[in-house]
Amino acid sequence: MKSKLKLVQGSVVAPKGFKAAGVFCDIKRLGTGKGSNKGNKRDLALIVSDTPATVAGMFTTNQVCAAPVKVCVERVKRGKAQAIVVNSGNANACTGRQGLADAREMAGFTERALLLPNGSALVGSTGRIGVTMPMDNLRAGIIEAAVELGSSIEHAAHAAEAIMTSDTRPKQIAVEFKLGGKTVRIGGMCKGAGMIQPGMSATGKRPAAFPQGLHATMLCFLTTDAAIEAKALQSALREAVAHSFNRITVDGDMSTNDTVLVLANGLAGNKNIEPRTSDAERRPFEQALNHVCLELAKMIVRDGEGVHRVVTVRVSGAKSTMDADAAARAVANSPLVKTSWHGGDPNWGRIIDAIGYSPATVVEEKIDIGYSGPGSKQILWSLKRGQPTKATFKELCAAVSPKEFDLHIRLNLGQAGAVMYAADLTEEYVDFNKGDVGDPGSLGG
Amino acid sequence: MKSKLKLVQGSVVAPKGFKAAGVFCDIKRLGTGKGSNKGNKRDLALIVSDTPATVAGMFTTNQVCAAPVKVCVERVKRGKAQAIVVNSGNANACTGRQGLADAREMAGFTERALLLPNGSALVGSTGRIGVTMPMDNLRAGIIEAAVELGSSIEHAAHAAEAIMTSDTRPKQIAVEFKLGGKTVRIGGMCKGAGMIQPGMSATGKRPAAFPQGLHATMLCFLTTDAAIEAKALQSALREAVAHSFNRITVDGDMSTNDTVLVLANGLAGNKNIEPRTSDAERRPFEQALNHVCLELAKMIVRDGEGVHRVVTVRVSGAKSTMDADAAARAVANSPLVKTSWHGGDPNWGRIIDAIGYSPATVVEEKIDIGYSGPGSKQILWSLKRGQPTKATFKELCAAVSPKEFDLHIRLNLGQAGAVMYAADLTEEYVDFNKGDVGDPGSLGG
Repeated sequence: MKSKLKLVQGSVVAPKGFKAAGVFCDIKRLGTGKGSNKGNKRDLALIVSDTPATVAGMFTTNQVCAAPVKVCVERVKRGKAQAIVVNSGNANACTGRQGLADAREMAGFTERALLLPNGSALVGSTGRIGVTMPMDNLRAGIIEAAVELGSSIEHAAHAAEAIMTSDTRPKQIAVEFKLGGKTVRIGGMCKGAGMIQPGMSATGKRPAAFPQGLHATMLCFLTTDAAIEAKALQSALREAVAHSFNRITVDGDMSTNDTVLVLANGLAGNKNIEPRTSDAERRPFEQALNHVCLELAKMIVRDGEGVHRVVTVRVSGAKSTMDADAAARAVANSPLVKTSWHGGDPNWGRIIDAIGYSPATVVEEKIDIGYSGPGSKQILWSLKRGQPTKATFKELCAAVSPKEFDLHIRLNLGQAGAVMYAADLTEEYVDFNKGDVGDPGSLGG
Repeated sequence: MKSKLKLVQGSVVAPKGFKAAGVFCDIKRLGTGKGSNKGNKRDLALIVSDTPATVAGMFTTNQVCAAPVKVCVERVKRGKAQAIVVNSGNANACTGRQGLADAREMAGFTERALLLPNGSALVGSTGRIGVTMPMDNLRAGIIEAAVELGSSIEHAAHAAEAIMTSDTRPKQIAVEFKLGGKTVRIGGMCKGAGMIQPGMSATGKRPAAFPQGLHATMLCFLTTDAAIEAKALQSALREAVAHSFNRITVDGDMSTNDTVLVLANGLAGNKNIEPRTSDAERRPFEQALNHVCLELAKMIVRDGEGVHRVVTVRVSGAKSTMDADAAARAVANSPLVKTSWHGGDPNWGRIIDAIGYSPATVVEEKIDIGYSGPGSKQILWSLKRGQPTKATFKELCAAVSPKEFDLHIRLNLGQAGAVMYAADLTEEYVDFNKGDVGDPGSLGG
């Protein structure tokens, strides 16, 4: 797949017809304290397409859901948008009617500043929960951003900085590929470091068959110059999110604000992708979108609060996908497993314990547990059919010592599988999140 | 209730006709490394009734379940037992057929040493997972314990020490009360500090309506001189465990070995309690058992690994008990909520976030969140109907500063409630559990 994809510079402005800006309007000082990006003062990002775009979105299924999410759910349904305005420092969550009015005004003010039609701006917020938005600062920021808009690499980088909260670095990517002879690009930026175990759906509602425990603020904004109809775009985004952002966990906490938005302006000139477009014609776009989402999602785990090690938990042989997911999440979120990863301790006892208490149906005597280096197919098994192998403790320690490794769990009961991109639990995570008393900071949403 | 209960000394030997011992047979050195009770070298406990007793038990619902649990599930069904032998340092979990044979031999050897009939000894193990039992040490320990047996306070204290793993102190209690004119006593000891979120059932199987996420090694051994028939004893124990051990969490990890056993030898001479015994005649026993189990359960949370603060999470107004339980567990196990407790930070944003992603049905605009001191009815509300109250940040900080406090969550949707006894998440927990590489220790079961 990667052979057909070319990495390019420019993130969200890499595709034709997109501009971006990231400015400072001092929301953070008023919003969060600790963790607000000291040294990265920008706190308002703007992404604008030159022409109306089709839009798709995925949103937190948390029942306590922030005002900007509510506004986006309404607007994405219409299938068309042209701008995205995002602030960090204030999540605009648990802010009641005022919060909803503020989120609408944030969109409306952006539309007026950019001379766009009503309803064409989408909004995102991340930061402190439960504080009303500093609307004067926000309006000043939107005007400044509208003036600053541009399509240079620096413009995109400023936007990526402006959405950071406890992130230590901006997260961005762009790829180029061919679609029916035309050159198409997808760009994206995201943020997120704590309160990370997204479980997003297109409506913000939980599907009936949603795995239990699907539970960050993570925000991701994608742009593409592909021509693609809204339903096809939503379908592609749902699939991409299902295999990327919805499969990561830093701390198991699902945020009130998780949002992924994509704007597709069609300026690449490819034949418009519709629901009826053949697989062969649609596949290159979907593959590129999947790649962009997965790479961005992994950047979030690698930059997770206090994270030292990233572990890809691969469960196979489950009776059902729900079972595979449940077992993978139980392991990925077990404090005892996560602290052992931090310690470089190949503690299979804690892993099989978590598998056993997960909602998945498992049989102790059938479980295999092993390790491989990232990208390696050579698996060192520590447990086969519930019993320790002859692998030595030293060998197992070596297998879990790299910064990134894969944990393989075979349940040997069926054909279903699931993957989780997970992180260790460190003293730094605790220290960072215990907060400073006297600082009323909830870097929640 | 407490007015009718008198606290007495002697723990498991306080009731008539019980003897105990705790000895050192060097299982720990062979089993666990770090966390094994340095300075508390005893690692084998024995409790014996002078006469045959009725028995009841509750066991982990982890599908990966240790050999001693399997043996106890079989034996408790028979309703009669006379001795309990317990080791620390080795969990005898994930030890396959050899482990099961070893657990049976541990019981059988105890019976022979004490000249008891076949099938009258029960077994418990806690410590490292995945290592076969050092049977020679164990046999030597059983013989020594059989010789040492006695009914002094010291004998009980030695037994309570011998079951400790990462516990920093022994946990024991005994109470006396009147039942139909007769003086009855219940004594108990328990252990547990990490891998603590028990979800026990009488069969080790998950009931259909078992709350999701019911997930320590905790061990608890109870003795009473009450006369009570096995079914009534099981019923009383099930109820007592449902409101005590099954409502605590330190780290959300359910162990492979969780076990509660009670022996009732009838030497108090009360009228035998049967399933048909009237509520009035049965109630004093049940209340005393509930009290003993709850006090022991709280000792586990207070002595949890790295625990600085204990928080009682009280959810009310839920649509169903399952919902109340789900909301309480989501809050009680959220890393972000737990780290804020550690920091003394009244971070309601993280609390409402966890409520929102829990499987419980909730409505943001109906949620109340408040705090009270332990035992106080004065609640300081931080959130009413989803909106911040006028309580100041300073007032809220003061409310969450004590070593123990109650967190009140009202969902205002129905009549159901649930309580969880929870703990903060500290750097010490992470440091303790990350392990020392080079020490193949899994203090799992």
